[in-house]
Order: sequence, then C-alpha cells, then structure tokens
Amino acid sequence: MTDSVSADCHPTHGYTPEKAAYLRRMRLIEGQTRGVARMVENDEYCIDILTQIAAVTSALKAVSLGLLEDHLEHCVADAARKGGPEAEAKLEEAMQAIRRLVK
Amino acid sequence: MTDSVSADCHPTHGYTPEKAAYLRRMRLIEGQTRGVARMVENDEYCIDILTQIAAVTSALKAVSLGLLEDHLEHCVADAARKGGPEAEAKLEEAMQAIRRLVK
Amino acid sequence: MTDSVSADCHPTHGYTPEKAAYLRRMRLIEGQTRGVARMVENDEYCIDILTQIAAVTSALKAVSLGLLEDHLEHCVADAARKGGPEAEAKLEEAMQAIRRLVK
Amino acid sequence: MTDSVSADCHPTHGYTPEKAAYLRRMRLIEGQTRGVARMVENDEYCIDILTQIAAVTSALKAVSLGLLEDHLEHCVADAARKGGPEAEAKLEEAMQAIRRLVK
Repeated sequence: MTDSVSADCHPTHGYTPEKAAYLRRMRLIEGQTRGVARMVENDEYCIDILTQIAAVTSALKAVSLGLLEDHLEHCVADAARKGGPEAEAKLEEAMQAIRRLVK
Repeated sequence: MTDSVSADCHPTHGYTPEKAAYLRRMRLIEGQTRGVARMVENDEYCIDILTQIAAVTSALKAVSLGLLEDHLEHCVADAARKGGPEAEAKLEEAMQAIRRLVK
Repeated sequence: MTDSVSADCHPTHGYTPEKAAYLRRMRLIEGQTRGVARMVENDEYCIDILTQIAAVTSALKAVSLGLLEDHLEHCVADAARKGGPEAEAKLEEAMQAIRRLVK
Repeated sequence: MTDSVSADCHPTHGYTPEKAAYLRRMRLIEGQTRGVARMVENDEYCIDILTQIAAVTSALKAVSLGLLEDHLEHCVADAARKGGPEAEAKLEEAMQAIRRLVK
C-alpha cells in the first residue's frame, strides 16, 4: 500500500460531517446494546429481546454498507485510477469485506 | 397468552447461569461497539472497522440463536404440549423472529 | 427417531394442496435458474444477472421458511408433546436447519 | 452509460473460460433445484429438503460474489478511471446489488 493511496483510505479525516454522523450512529448502537443487556437483566420476554437485537444488527448493517460505499468510492476507486497490483489488492480486500457482510 | 404459559416464556428466571452468561456476552458486545466508535473517532482504516463490525454482528447472531433455541425449547414446546390456538400463536410469533433473523 | 413421530415428519403426504404448491414453486425456481444460465450464455449485463439471482435466492428462502414452519408445526410440536430425548433431538435438528438458513 | 464503458460491462464476451465456468455452475444449480422438486415429490424428510435448498442458496451466493468481483474489477474500475458522473452511477448501481446480496 503506497502512502499516497493509504492517505485516501480512511473513512473520515479530521472533523467531517460524515465522521460525526458515523460516531453518532455507533453511539446509538452502543446504547441499544446496553438496552438489550438491561432486557436480559430484567428477564424480559425472549421474542422482545430478539426483536431488539434484530434492530441492532440492522443498524450495524447500515453502518457497514455506508462505510463500504465510502471505501469503494474513495480508496478502491483511487487505486483503480492508479492501476497496477495495488488496484487488484484493494479490490480483493474489499471483496473479502463484502463476503463477510454477505455471510 | 395465558399466564401459565407466559410464566415459562422468559429466557431466564432469577439468577441462573444462563442469564449470567447472556449478560456477560451482551456486555462484551457493548464493549465491542464502543471499540468501533473509537476506531471511527481515530480515523482507522475502513476495512478494519468493517472487520470489527462483522465480529459484533456475528456475536449478536450467536446470542440470538441461543435465545431462540431456549425459547423454542421452553415457551414454544410448552405451548405445543398444551395445544390449541396459543400453540399456533407461539409458533407464528417464533416464525416471525426467525424471518427477521434470516433476512 | 421413532416411527410414530417420523410418520408425521414429511412436509406432505400423498397429493395435498401444500405439496402441489411447493412443487409449483420449485418448478418456477428451476425455470428461473435456467433463465440465469441463458443470461450468462447471452452475455447479458452483470448487474441484471445479479438481480435475477437475488430473485431466485429470495424465492428459495421463502420456500425454506415455509417448509421450516410446517416442520416446526408438525414434526417438532408432535415430538414436544411426546417429550423425552426425541423432543430434544428434533429441536436440535431444527436449530441446525435454522442456523444454516441464518448464515 | 456510454458505449465505451458498457462494452466492458459484460461478465464474459464470446467464448471465454469464465463464461463456460459460470454456465457450468448455473447448470449444476439448475440440476440441484430439479433435485429439490423431486425430493418434494417423493415426500422426503423436511430437514433433508432444507439442507439441499441451503446448498443451492450457497452455490448461488458463490456465483453472485464471483460475478460481482468481475463487475467491480472491470466495469466499475473502468468507470472509475474515466471519472465523472458515470463513475458515480456505476458505483451506486454496484452498491444496490451489494445491498440486495447482504439482505
């Protein structure tokens, strides 16, 4: 990975609106997981806990798809423009992340 | 839902080893989501954040499958033994949870 | 698996409307997979092929959820009513099928 | 979509080894779906049918991931090199396909 490419390969740099939005979403998700722990603690109904976990999973999936889109748009596209083995490496790396998401 | 069935329809009652284990797992997951927020905050590499989110999703899926198994084993099986419309209602409710998991 | 339970453990017996419906759905799916092969043969646009494969996957998922619901309603519920190690074995077998679906 | 890009946007052109391999895989999948129909016809055990459907779904997922990788490597990367609104359009289109796969 050359520095010129890796420099573009972060979701956010410094304080951008995107970074603030991802942070806000991850903090909401953290709060939701705390809520699930509380539901377990209070012996709440299984199905209600499952519904709440499905909401967390769905929120995490949305964050992942957002990060993946940013990554393809910046890092992988930049590498494609430069070409060569790094373009291939970046694509293969992104494909591995997609495979994990799809699983 | 009759009270006699709903009484069996909680993942855990009082302090059981299962309840302690679910709580421990949810707290680990909460810590993992906090770790993801920190990675976003520190502008870490997208793919590494995606890998970490995949680990959280996978841990949540394992908790969901555990809770679902407990629920089928206790609540749905008890309702099946009693029969009648409640057995059907419990099964349909469980199927909805399975559909959300499969999505 | 005792014979008395396994006798209830088939999705359909003889010619039932459910069996006819599942057969019809599987034949539609077979036709869709043939359509995808034809799209590959005709060098059609990747994204269109992916869309068509997503439709097949979605149809297969719907068939699986239908079969699973029938199975829980008949085979697993019957075993639960009889109780004992077979009830547990049936549930564990169903959970493995659910885990494969969720993956 | 300009013609120069769309010309690169087919999984296979003429008779390539990749095209032959995708065709072979789709025909195997078609045969597997026919096998599932036969299992339904023969009143085979639900769980065995579910296992077989899971194998078909898994084979379709592998074909989709292969096609997606080819598509990102050729069509989306070519569009990225040319830049402009088409690069964005190709990426957004690929993201929609990924969202359908992840669902």
